Amino acid sequence: MVYFDHNATTPLPKAARAAWLQAADEAWHNPSSPYRASARVRNLLEGSRGRLAEFLGCRADEVVFNSGATEANNALFTHLSRRSDAGRGVLLSPVEHPCVLEAASFSFSGRVTFLNVDGDGVVDPEDLRAKLRETSPLLVSVQAANNETGVIQPFQALAKICREHGVWFHCDAAQWFGKLPGSRLQGCDFVTGSAHKFGGPKGTGFLRVPSAADDFRGQLGGEQEHGHRAGTENYPSVAAMLAALEEREAGGYADLAERASRRNRFESRLLKELPGAKVVAMERERLWNTVSILPPRYENHGWVMKLDREGFAVSTGSACASGSQSPSHVLAAMGYTAEEARRVVRVSAGPETREEDWLGLAQAFGRVWRRWEAKGTDSSLTEVISI
Amino acid sequence: MVYFDHNATTPLPKAARAAWLQAADEAWHNPSSPYRASARVRNLLEGSRGRLAEFLGCRADEVVFNSGATEANNALFTHLSRRSDAGRGVLLSPVEHPCVLEAASFSFSGRVTFLNVDGDGVVDPEDLRAKLRETSPLLVSVQAANNETGVIQPFQALAKICREHGVWFHCDAAQWFGKLPGSRLQGCDFVTGSAHKFGGPKGTGFLRVPSAADDFRGQLGGEQEHGHRAGTENYPSVAAMLAALEEREAGGYADLAERASRRNRFESRLLKELPGAKVVAMERERLWNTVSILPPRYENHGWVMKLDREGFAVSTGSACASGSQSPSHVLAAMGYTAEEARRVVRVSAGPETREEDWLGLAQAFGRVWRRWEAKGTDSSLTEVISI
Repeated sequence: MVYFDHNATTPLPKAARAAWLQAADEAWHNPSSPYRASARVRNLLEGSRGRLAEFLGCRADEVVFNSGATEANNALFTHLSRRSDAGRGVLLSPVEHPCVLEAASFSFSGRVTFLNVDGDGVVDPEDLRAKLRETSPLLVSVQAANNETGVIQPFQALAKICREHGVWFHCDAAQWFGKLPGSRLQGCDFVTGSAHKFGGPKGTGFLRVPSAADDFRGQLGGEQEHGHRAGTENYPSVAAMLAALEEREAGGYADLAERASRRNRFESRLLKELPGAKVVAMERERLWNTVSILPPRYENHGWVMKLDREGFAVSTGSACASGSQSPSHVLAAMGYTAEEARRVVRVSAGPETREEDWLGLAQAFGRVWRRWEAKGTDSSLTEVISI
Repeated sequence: MVYFDHNATTPLPKAARAAWLQAADEAWHNPSSPYRASARVRNLLEGSRGRLAEFLGCRADEVVFNSGATEANNALFTHLSRRSDAGRGVLLSPVEHPCVLEAASFSFSGRVTFLNVDGDGVVDPEDLRAKLRETSPLLVSVQAANNETGVIQPFQALAKICREHGVWFHCDAAQWFGKLPGSRLQGCDFVTGSAHKFGGPKGTGFLRVPSAADDFRGQLGGEQEHGHRAGTENYPSVAAMLAALEEREAGGYADLAERASRRNRFESRLLKELPGAKVVAMERERLWNTVSILPPRYENHGWVMKLDREGFAVSTGSACASGSQSPSHVLAAMGYTAEEARRVVRVSAGPETREEDWLGLAQAFGRVWRRWEAKGTDSSLTEVISI
């Protein structure tokens, strides 16, 4: 199977697998225990914290390891809502991941304001300026890159504006890390990362918490993570996460232009194979790995099933929403109709995806399309129902 | 090094290590993605859920996988505090783990009532009956076994009383699973478990949520875990956790009497090696693996350091509290003075701890004691400070 769903999760590279095994075998002791074997693990953990801080361009004690982006984003809004100035509310883009939208809506019920996005889902810095004046929020949260479309937000500009206004800026960078340099997040106050999106193990991630928010408490009940998050530290997974990120950061960004042109050649070919199809936000700055395709016909579940039979794993959108029947909130915010959103197929490559994988996928789209069309449009409904 | 800190964490047995690797290599796909490779992982995950439910004696859809006991206990009290009947408060034992005490105190500020415990830290069922009548709580939370002393609570009797009163009973069984049969927790409504305490990986655990609390939501932002907890499912760690638990459940409980007598022989020998020492709650029903020792003199940090040099890893109490200077809240609730609590050393064995390991530890206690005493008591302070 050729895997084109790296935005949902990506397998462990050898280095991460080896790092996990070595730590599980040799550094499994509880870092908070009082003897020397534990002190060694504590030192290793702090070493990982320092290395991650270097990628982020922040202080080591600003890095809070946790169970992943969903925990990070939930903990951030829960924590903020406990502050005495929580009445100030929060400002979000409407294309954030559901774990930002739902956590914020729950903790700041009635105090969430949405930024405008254009037809490509991009936030306008001028709209941010205007809404900062109008609403005087406690925090602004805008993602680095969208998980469904790959569209990149002008987060550096947005962070700068927030800083000028003395308002915290949070960037959910779950889809950014390992695809583009982590150092670009340096100007953000809070930053969310998820290991399994860039080759680390599932169940691991981090939140950068600025020193100015040193009262941050995620899980309660222990002094781990410099008091920011209770719970036994998961050093094997942290070690594997760092090994994965180091591999991506060390070798991953030199050939970005080549990766983007591979993606572009796929898109050109796809539009020939699939007449009438559209690539979502095609003209905007996007991740080199993500293509969101609006085919001229047929629901996306049918496309996924048929491409699976052709040997390609692609997705209907975000994995967490695949179970639900409601159309993508991201595409809705961009002005797509529910009917269009139900057609959209997401393709997301990995660092090892080759030219021939992309080409093969474009050709598979073409084969599926021509076969489907040959059967007549009336059979499409039956195909979808029979999944 | 002979490891006597299994209550802090325990290494992965071969079966768990192999299960993690196999899943990481072959079943790493996102279980929520829409193609067949993901459906396979979804089926494997649901298989693990069913197997865990069998050990717990509950329905599979009552099992919520998460990142561990700290998350479970935090999520439980956060969830309950959002309910319309949260005004009713909660009833806890004072010897619960800090992640129960702090989460409950935060979410139910001013509405936490404590049960009495006796000098061994055991809850009295009659006191529970009285306080149920007085306070009419939403939930009662009493652990299965204490992490510091190993003392077992009469949780089955307590659960029965709660059921009679129509009040939910939560049992934090983080120290129970893998040491004694999981099926004994069957009568509890909510049950917390932590993988790395019984040989599973760190960063993994579960909460049993009864069907009657089907509105339970931990992390928000996705429909994973039957809607109970958002976030990409960590199947490799779940698979390893089940492999570890199966090994413990399959072979671990046949020789409980033998294990307890090994522990008892250690205690007898220890009291000879260390005249004037005391075993905390020696006459009570305790886990077969845990001994909480009150030496006649010297602070526990000094004992840990000296025993470390003798080749034995023991602890000052719970790992999560080792960093703090405040004496154990568990021992305080049992009536020990702060000075006594600062002397207490915790020893916790694993399933593979041998007779000669126990004997060796008792002898090491004796050697350390006699050497320390020979130096004169005045040097004890220096020893502690020089750690």
